[in-house]
Amino acid sequence: MPKTAVNPLKRDALAIFKAGLAAADPARAVEQALAKVGDRYRRILVVGAGKAGATMARAAERALGSRIAGGLINVKDGHTAKLRRIELNECGHPIPDERGVDGARRIAEIVRSAGPGDLVLCLISGGGSALLPYPAEGLTLADKQETTRCLLACGATIHEINAVRKHLSAIKGGRLALLAQPAPVLALLLSDVIGDDLSVIGSGPTAPDESTYQGALEALDKYGIRAAVPEPVRKRLEAGARGEVEETPKELSNARNIVVGSNRLAVDAAERKAKELGYRTLVLATTIEGETRDIARMHAAIAKEVLASRRPVRAPACILSGGETTVTLRGKGLGGRNQEFALAAALDIAGAGDVAVLSAGTDGTDGPTDAAGAFADSSTLMRSAAKGLDAKASLRENDSYHFFEPLNDLVKTGPTGTNVMDLRILLVR
Amino acid sequence: MPKTAVNPLKRDALAIFKAGLAAADPARAVEQALAKVGDRYRRILVVGAGKAGATMARAAERALGSRIAGGLINVKDGHTAKLRRIELNECGHPIPDERGVDGARRIAEIVRSAGPGDLVLCLISGGGSALLPYPAEGLTLADKQETTRCLLACGATIHEINAVRKHLSAIKGGRLALLAQPAPVLALLLSDVIGDDLSVIGSGPTAPDESTYQGALEALDKYGIRAAVPEPVRKRLEAGARGEVEETPKELSNARNIVVGSNRLAVDAAERKAKELGYRTLVLATTIEGETRDIARMHAAIAKEVLASRRPVRAPACILSGGETTVTLRGKGLGGRNQEFALAAALDIAGAGDVAVLSAGTDGTDGPTDAAGAFADSSTLMRSAAKGLDAKASLRENDSYHFFEPLNDLVKTGPTGTNVMDLRILLVR
Repeated sequence: MPKTAVNPLKRDALAIFKAGLAAADPARAVEQALAKVGDRYRRILVVGAGKAGATMARAAERALGSRIAGGLINVKDGHTAKLRRIELNECGHPIPDERGVDGARRIAEIVRSAGPGDLVLCLISGGGSALLPYPAEGLTLADKQETTRCLLACGATIHEINAVRKHLSAIKGGRLALLAQPAPVLALLLSDVIGDDLSVIGSGPTAPDESTYQGALEALDKYGIRAAVPEPVRKRLEAGARGEVEETPKELSNARNIVVGSNRLAVDAAERKAKELGYRTLVLATTIEGETRDIARMHAAIAKEVLASRRPVRAPACILSGGETTVTLRGKGLGGRNQEFALAAALDIAGAGDVAVLSAGTDGTDGPTDAAGAFADSSTLMRSAAKGLDAKASLRENDSYHFFEPLNDLVKTGPTGTNVMDLRILLVR
Repeated sequence: MPKTAVNPLKRDALAIFKAGLAAADPARAVEQALAKVGDRYRRILVVGAGKAGATMARAAERALGSRIAGGLINVKDGHTAKLRRIELNECGHPIPDERGVDGARRIAEIVRSAGPGDLVLCLISGGGSALLPYPAEGLTLADKQETTRCLLACGATIHEINAVRKHLSAIKGGRLALLAQPAPVLALLLSDVIGDDLSVIGSGPTAPDESTYQGALEALDKYGIRAAVPEPVRKRLEAGARGEVEETPKELSNARNIVVGSNRLAVDAAERKAKELGYRTLVLATTIEGETRDIARMHAAIAKEVLASRRPVRAPACILSGGETTVTLRGKGLGGRNQEFALAAALDIAGAGDVAVLSAGTDGTDGPTDAAGAFADSSTLMRSAAKGLDAKASLRENDSYHFFEPLNDLVKTGPTGTNVMDLRILLVR
């Protein structure tokens, strides 16, 4: 028996978060997706890259067993496991290194070896882009990195940066699927990007690419850096624009890309759980970015509107959102965007009736802490004041961890082996 | 016949905004509220304060005619009009001045003169607090201002500041209604504050006050400034806490407060218009505060979610919100929070299909500009680029006015004589 009364809103919020988390579990997602793969393939070759590579590969072995002929996946240092058929290659992340390049070369060879009767299974998860570095012929990893640095420094959009990078890679922008032809490619993607764009997840090694050499050059010219990037980079893009280098594929008839885990799928699962628990649900959006404390204030305003005017949904209400916000560091405290979200919301919902909020990252780590996020309700400020904590000062110092720890309101899951960004759950009774 | 095709989303957004604006029209609101005032009063005395004072007073004269025996309203310099029965007293705003104090004293006398058969009609609108300065006995206007400065400097909450100020006033915190007793008081309030708290609008001259002398002293002690405030202030609060000075009224049986105009009422009217135009509507909240560009990003994410997953409401959708955001000035451009909202949203909805946003202030002036706000849609970025405008640079420079002016997408209404904060309208087809 628990010694203290369980806060029912906290119990519900945790149950809803865990349901979302379960839907983002890469093992379950891969096994479910592979249950339908038939027996018609001569060999199944497994390749891929990403932080969830070990978990996804193990699930693939469980689902396909001896039908897997072999394979290789680039994973982040330490994110490995003992497997029977698929090799895991540890490499540098977030800064790509030569181990990554070696692995990517071998992956390309495996894919190239696939014959008409074979299936290439490609498993991509968060970090997949940095973990699959393969500079196009004549380029070095340093050339690519220098180019990215130039683009970042002049404020290029992520869209522009991707267009350039895909045209400097031997494997991104759909080229991996091209190498497999005529063998079919099934790519299972665990999306950690806003909007789940197939050509953005892991830089889209198996997805058609809309960008062009011409567009990449235009991006460089827009910022006046054509002459500033390494010469081999400039020469390759110019040759490509003249049609002397093969363009990235604009369609790929042999590749099928399936998003098996994403923020949207996690939010959907969380919503189902909330309905089960008797809440009227409203999903605001799954692509929410922006400064954490301001986004938190808007969530709090919506919760208070439910109380004031039964809008946008009547209580008992569960309002959900997903995405990944940012924190502009102002202080020297300890915390993460999810804990800061809960702290900023706590200030606005203080004393507002039966309102609670839980914000947590699906990877189980929020900022440099051992918590995934935090829970707050309309009594948080009162409870914290009783312990001598000053919520406003904690927020000012970005010190959300030390605010929620003594309240026992940190949400801890341990590393989950997945990452489909954050879930935010507002409950109003 | 218009020379250019009318953008249907823009036409609808403007119609919806104007419906919201009409509901916030103080003249209409006052006339409607007074239509039910019976003939049973011997005299009707009209008092009040606020920027919409002239409009509200004129409407009262129209509604009540010769039943008005006289009255006085403190208004902002220049916000005056020629009236037949009610005197308008121009005074300083936002910094209160001695003209305001003189007016407030005369208002108190008028109210005190009311007999049992009379009605005191009190008309309060935005700015009503600064426009009704009446230091309690023994205090000067300078004492009050110095106290507010101290509280602001140490980061006191608006709640704490109000608790202190109400206990330094001869007229706020319900004391005006107390002066009228036993005469009944009907207060018509045009709310420009988040949440429409009766005791906050114009510092609640006719509303019961929950705060106490004791609480005011505790606020000073919390920030260690009891010794720092002017001595007469400290002495009054201490005497009050000992029960030697009359406390603000905790209930007021003779006063009736009616919010005749507010952001909520304006949003409601806008929602009705949107329904009429065939949109499925969703009101997010009417109390949204926070940094404009981040709040705009969250609105844009919700609009895109409608397109991606038909949530939180299916298209054709009109998503509404109200409140007042803030802008942290980073650049040297020209604009206001509503224009900046539209600009930040434009960046996120670019190319996203049939999406539009209109954000505008109900007072008709957004920042130091002649526009009330601006309209943006998914083609705004393309249209602006064609004119050589750089949306990101304009946002960086807080230069939204010069961004929208060449696009002909500023929303201009001229000064409206009202202020119930801002309306934001998202349309998705």
